Amino acid sequence: MTPSPPGASPGEGRSPIVECVPNISEGRRPEVIAAIAGAVARSGRARLIDLSSDPDHNRSVLTIAGPPDGVRAAAEALVAVAVERIDLRRHAGSHPRMGAVDVIPFVPVRGVAMDDCVRLARQVGAAIAARHALPVYLYEAAASAPHRRNLAEIRRGEFEGFAEKIRDPRWTPDFGPDRVHPSAGCTAVGARPFLIAFNVDLRTSDVEIAKAIARVVRESSGGLPCVKALGLFLEDRGRAQVSMNLTDYRTTSIPRAFEAVRDEAARRGVEVATSELVGLVPEEAVLQVAAHALRLESLDPSRILEHRIDEALRGDGRPAADGGDGR
Amino acid sequence: MTPSPPGASPGEGRSPIVECVPNISEGRRPEVIAAIAGAVARSGRARLIDLSSDPDHNRSVLTIAGPPDGVRAAAEALVAVAVERIDLRRHAGSHPRMGAVDVIPFVPVRGVAMDDCVRLARQVGAAIAARHALPVYLYEAAASAPHRRNLAEIRRGEFEGFAEKIRDPRWTPDFGPDRVHPSAGCTAVGARPFLIAFNVDLRTSDVEIAKAIARVVRESSGGLPCVKALGLFLEDRGRAQVSMNLTDYRTTSIPRAFEAVRDEAARRGVEVATSELVGLVPEEAVLQVAAHALRLESLDPSRILEHRIDEALRGDGRPAADGGDGR
Repeated sequence: MTPSPPGASPGEGRSPIVECVPNISEGRRPEVIAAIAGAVARSGRARLIDLSSDPDHNRSVLTIAGPPDGVRAAAEALVAVAVERIDLRRHAGSHPRMGAVDVIPFVPVRGVAMDDCVRLARQVGAAIAARHALPVYLYEAAASAPHRRNLAEIRRGEFEGFAEKIRDPRWTPDFGPDRVHPSAGCTAVGARPFLIAFNVDLRTSDVEIAKAIARVVRESSGGLPCVKALGLFLEDRGRAQVSMNLTDYRTTSIPRAFEAVRDEAARRGVEVATSELVGLVPEEAVLQVAAHALRLESLDPSRILEHRIDEALRGDGRPAADGGDGR
Repeated sequence: MTPSPPGASPGEGRSPIVECVPNISEGRRPEVIAAIAGAVARSGRARLIDLSSDPDHNRSVLTIAGPPDGVRAAAEALVAVAVERIDLRRHAGSHPRMGAVDVIPFVPVRGVAMDDCVRLARQVGAAIAARHALPVYLYEAAASAPHRRNLAEIRRGEFEGFAEKIRDPRWTPDFGPDRVHPSAGCTAVGARPFLIAFNVDLRTSDVEIAKAIARVVRESSGGLPCVKALGLFLEDRGRAQVSMNLTDYRTTSIPRAFEAVRDEAARRGVEVATSELVGLVPEEAVLQVAAHALRLESLDPSRILEHRIDEALRGDGRPAADGGDGR
């Protein structure tokens, strides 16, 4: 479907970018959160581009982006501070967690393959396990066994249950000792695709229709692979909505999910009103939408005028031209 | 639809880019073409990113891109060499022409408005008129009167007819003397949107259907504004095609043109097979396609993950985050 080689991202030629989204078990003490964010800021070429703390969850989500080596350095710097400052024996919050640094996913964004992120996950996992005597589990694309792919399965039992769980041979850590770190617990390190949050509003207030459509389209009940879906009622709009997470848009694309919802709605006599992309979306996923809509065979990022000109101005350009003024 | 100010292009924050596509009346003598291209290369920060010469037309089209000042310097350098090296009294070719430098359009690409390109056209027009005693006509968005917008209307009569045409008060030049330059003729300098070449293949070999659809959709016979269209038969594919130029995709977008062709084809019992975008396409035009297909209210370039990260890495970033790994 994409003209890129398997696993490669579009945008070769531009600087490679990895995103890393560590979740730490601290959402209340600003001085601790600031110390951890500061460690990322001082680590080198990666940038902290988002920080979101939830006191109720007692958890913070950091979004880091940059070149692979920079992101790796940032992740390791963050773990060092978090392990020192967070004690899970005194941690309470509404979100499940098993470690001071609960989870560290690496996400390929541009010019890097998923395999590169798997390699990063292994390197960072091995490094933090050795440095802090921290048990590390690899998950999703980095998982060492099928039963370890799903983060929720790894985390089941949480910090309090891990002293026992870690003795089960099925749950021997991938790196580090076979015993839980007394204060920092365990950490999951993984590689996964970018997650797209995509909602489709229906021209109906009947939430049962949205729920029925969600059941048909989501993977967990036999629908489209890599699609999670819920039917919701939006009070303010007075409309039912199918709210989806596309966990791998190369497996199920935005237009495929959209058309599945549209067609299921049509079978129930309901039209799609609008849709919305929540947060950010990778360029490749947008190009998939355009190519599908126009029945183009493909739409490569190199066909985008601005990319071609940027390349030319950097000195590695191929021709960029429109039709001229002869016609 | 876009949150940018009217006339502004997306991609504020990245370096501004203008494209300039001069057409010169020389397509046969390689040493002259090389001298003109060399003048562009030595002019400064603009880059020559395409050069296409047609010996039959005896004409070359140069594509130059860069920051506004760089493109302005390149255009002026090019005119100086072309005026010196090209003599229209000894020029023959199948393409209509009125000057050694026949036409110089400026095209906004990123971070510049059409008004900026109109200003560039006026600056370059005034400069080359003064320096070379060359009559200059402003056209399209830079035109000083409605009857001067259309390049073909300005050029009518060609070099050989201009000694007389220039005495008509309707055709007094915008800059320069009221007499044709003896060897270099006259030059049209303008500003216009990027031209998108877009073809839709039909599941029929009947070219009459493609021709009928082209007549319905094109502006010249009362169809969509800023759309030129022809019906063609493609020997190798055995299919009829509606071949379009979209001269302003902000007026008639790609999806609007596509759907017009699709609907007219359906009325004639014919399906669309595939479509193709020829050459390059501005990012904004692709985002229009995606927004239309998904019934999004809009899709701003700032929602593209890679743009947000590039901004953050340059130091002017806003947050970039996906859904995290809590769910």
